[in-house]
Amino acid sequence: MDSLSIARAAKKCAPILANTPTQQKNQVLLRMAELLDAHRGDLVAANQIDVIAAKDAGLPPHLVARLVWPNEKIDARIRALHKIASLPDPVGEFFEPLACGNGLKTFKMRVPLGVILMVYEARLHVTVNAGAFCIKSGNAVILRGGSEAKTCNKLLGELWQQALSDAGLPTEAIQMVIGSHETVHEFLQLSEEIDLAIPRGGTRLIEAVSAASRIPLLKHYNGICHVYIDEGADLHQALDIAIDSKCLMPEVCNAMETVLVHSSLTPQLDQIVAKFHANDVKVKGCPVVTANVSGVEAATEEDWQTEYLQLVVSIRVVDTLSDAIAHINKFGSQHTDTIVTDSYHRADTFVKEVDSSVVLVNASTMFNDGATLGMGAEIGIATGKLHARGPVGLQGLTSYKYVIRGSGQIMGQEGIP
Amino acid sequence: MDSLSIARAAKKCAPILANTPTQQKNQVLLRMAELLDAHRGDLVAANQIDVIAAKDAGLPPHLVARLVWPNEKIDARIRALHKIASLPDPVGEFFEPLACGNGLKTFKMRVPLGVILMVYEARLHVTVNAGAFCIKSGNAVILRGGSEAKTCNKLLGELWQQALSDAGLPTEAIQMVIGSHETVHEFLQLSEEIDLAIPRGGTRLIEAVSAASRIPLLKHYNGICHVYIDEGADLHQALDIAIDSKCLMPEVCNAMETVLVHSSLTPQLDQIVAKFHANDVKVKGCPVVTANVSGVEAATEEDWQTEYLQLVVSIRVVDTLSDAIAHINKFGSQHTDTIVTDSYHRADTFVKEVDSSVVLVNASTMFNDGATLGMGAEIGIATGKLHARGPVGLQGLTSYKYVIRGSGQIMGQEGIP
Repeated sequence: MDSLSIARAAKKCAPILANTPTQQKNQVLLRMAELLDAHRGDLVAANQIDVIAAKDAGLPPHLVARLVWPNEKIDARIRALHKIASLPDPVGEFFEPLACGNGLKTFKMRVPLGVILMVYEARLHVTVNAGAFCIKSGNAVILRGGSEAKTCNKLLGELWQQALSDAGLPTEAIQMVIGSHETVHEFLQLSEEIDLAIPRGGTRLIEAVSAASRIPLLKHYNGICHVYIDEGADLHQALDIAIDSKCLMPEVCNAMETVLVHSSLTPQLDQIVAKFHANDVKVKGCPVVTANVSGVEAATEEDWQTEYLQLVVSIRVVDTLSDAIAHINKFGSQHTDTIVTDSYHRADTFVKEVDSSVVLVNASTMFNDGATLGMGAEIGIATGKLHARGPVGLQGLTSYKYVIRGSGQIMGQEGIP
Repeated sequence: MDSLSIARAAKKCAPILANTPTQQKNQVLLRMAELLDAHRGDLVAANQIDVIAAKDAGLPPHLVARLVWPNEKIDARIRALHKIASLPDPVGEFFEPLACGNGLKTFKMRVPLGVILMVYEARLHVTVNAGAFCIKSGNAVILRGGSEAKTCNKLLGELWQQALSDAGLPTEAIQMVIGSHETVHEFLQLSEEIDLAIPRGGTRLIEAVSAASRIPLLKHYNGICHVYIDEGADLHQALDIAIDSKCLMPEVCNAMETVLVHSSLTPQLDQIVAKFHANDVKVKGCPVVTANVSGVEAATEEDWQTEYLQLVVSIRVVDTLSDAIAHINKFGSQHTDTIVTDSYHRADTFVKEVDSSVVLVNASTMFNDGATLGMGAEIGIATGKLHARGPVGLQGLTSYKYVIRGSGQIMGQEGIP
């Protein structure tokens, strides 16, 4: 099928999905969970074909690592499907009643967006999460996965088809497209048929999609995340948070890249650096750090705006909270930033002035995560400000309509003849 | 100043406005209300210069009518400024707390978008409303008004500058630009500096802006709005609602264009048509209408998708509620649609299945209006589904950040060495 036919088939499904009962939508997700469990062997085998091909093609090791889909990752997706099925259905939810004062009862009612296009690279969990989020939120979805994952994605697409069919829904509700870059470009022109596109992958993918798209986008850019250790912070707690933020999953977008340290902690810089070294993290530092701790490489201007995605950290000493906030707003990527402090006032200032999608106080950047935040998983972490920001789950895939219930009200003051 | 310098000046203001106290923002609005009152004579005189020039230039009468700005319209803007000043400040508002289960306290906090570009035609009230909404919601705004209103808009821009300056805020927070079409195109490329563009005007303006823009848009398309008179509806109530929806302000986007009538009311078609005729409305009808009522012109396929903006209405008889909903979803513009019914079930079905930004039951389409709905006014009525839909007030000009407050939580299971 060509891109336009695929998009039109999705658009035809949209009103059906918008009016599908919650229980039937959940049935699709729970059936998919069963199918994943029943087809583990096939999925792992399909994935191995892709992994071998990727290695042969010379794909960088961190992308090969992302592609590998062992049994435990399948378990995690089965759990996510159960979790998303258990969440309240956003569609039809009433919220934000308005007081009109003329007897009209007015509120917003959540509705699906319509048709969503996912454009992503070697991330098999996206195939499961995006399908589940879109169905549960009443949207049709076109999944355009990376060619490096094609064998396993093709199988996952077939399982989605079966799950939809078993639940009595049209199979065009989730369409898996394994195509070329040209196909992506074609889809991105179809603003009549597709309501939202979500690109997930490296900066190059997202920039290419942004440049080509006639469809509104939810962008998921890179994460240059910070931990700021404030004057008077509990250093033990601060280091636990900094190490967790850096080391737990250094390859993910909400891993921390730069530690900002208040200058009152200059005597403790050797202790801070030692902690990172003990966790196999390479440290780069500003002149205050290199002057106070031996064996630390000098950080360049480039370091403050680098998403390392590996066990490297840059450390900068700042004189004030304002300097820390200014550094984050200048060099960060409006993603995820933490302050470690015992000051009530400075915590509030940091929360208010740091212009990022997720701002934390005394907690690891790792908590910017849909699963942790009760969303089941996330379809992406949006770094723009329009429509949805931060981790995006079911609600971010919806819009609303205003509903106004009256009893014969008219606006005109005079009687109508 | 060139477009880039104007946009950069606005962007520089954005963090200042984001952190301006409510009281100081209100001061700008209340000062502007005083200045409008003090400069009525100058404003009306400036407007008359533009109106005469517009007539000389042969601007269509309905656009000239829109341009005229008498004292009563200035009064209405003064009331709107007071109302918007009295509304709660959206910035910093906490909402949607999330239960995380690990002691983290998580919620969303409303934040401004940053810099907003308004592109509009001969509507002077937009200059006042947009300035007020943007300042109150903590955003900088670039107002690019139509050249046909240039004399009065220039004066309004100067009054905004004075109001900002008197309240101690930078005057770049509201910049009035009187420029060419090329200037609009230049602004629409500045996606680094401008966060959102809102075009308001005819379909041609909006399509031109959509085609050129690299900035996300809130579009305000035309309104092809319907009143559906259901089987068993109170015909007196239905006709009051239909006449109010058509006749009160036929030139506005939420005026009704088509009445859909359930076929059980065929014997009452002459009464329905007579009511429109008594209100000087020209009636066009489907074959059932023309067969039952003499003197009614046949409606063409084109009529069902025409925004008349004048005292013309098309009437179509439908056999079922489903047919009415299908007609609205096919020919309407997802704007404003009403059912008049006494059926609880059919009211719910209409509300659920009509895919429009505002859906009403037993009330006039005229109520799709920010002032009526308690927003003070509206910066536009969005017909898309992304970010904000329907009448857009303060909240539609904001985004949010996630705030996560912890007490030392880390994600890693193992102790950190």
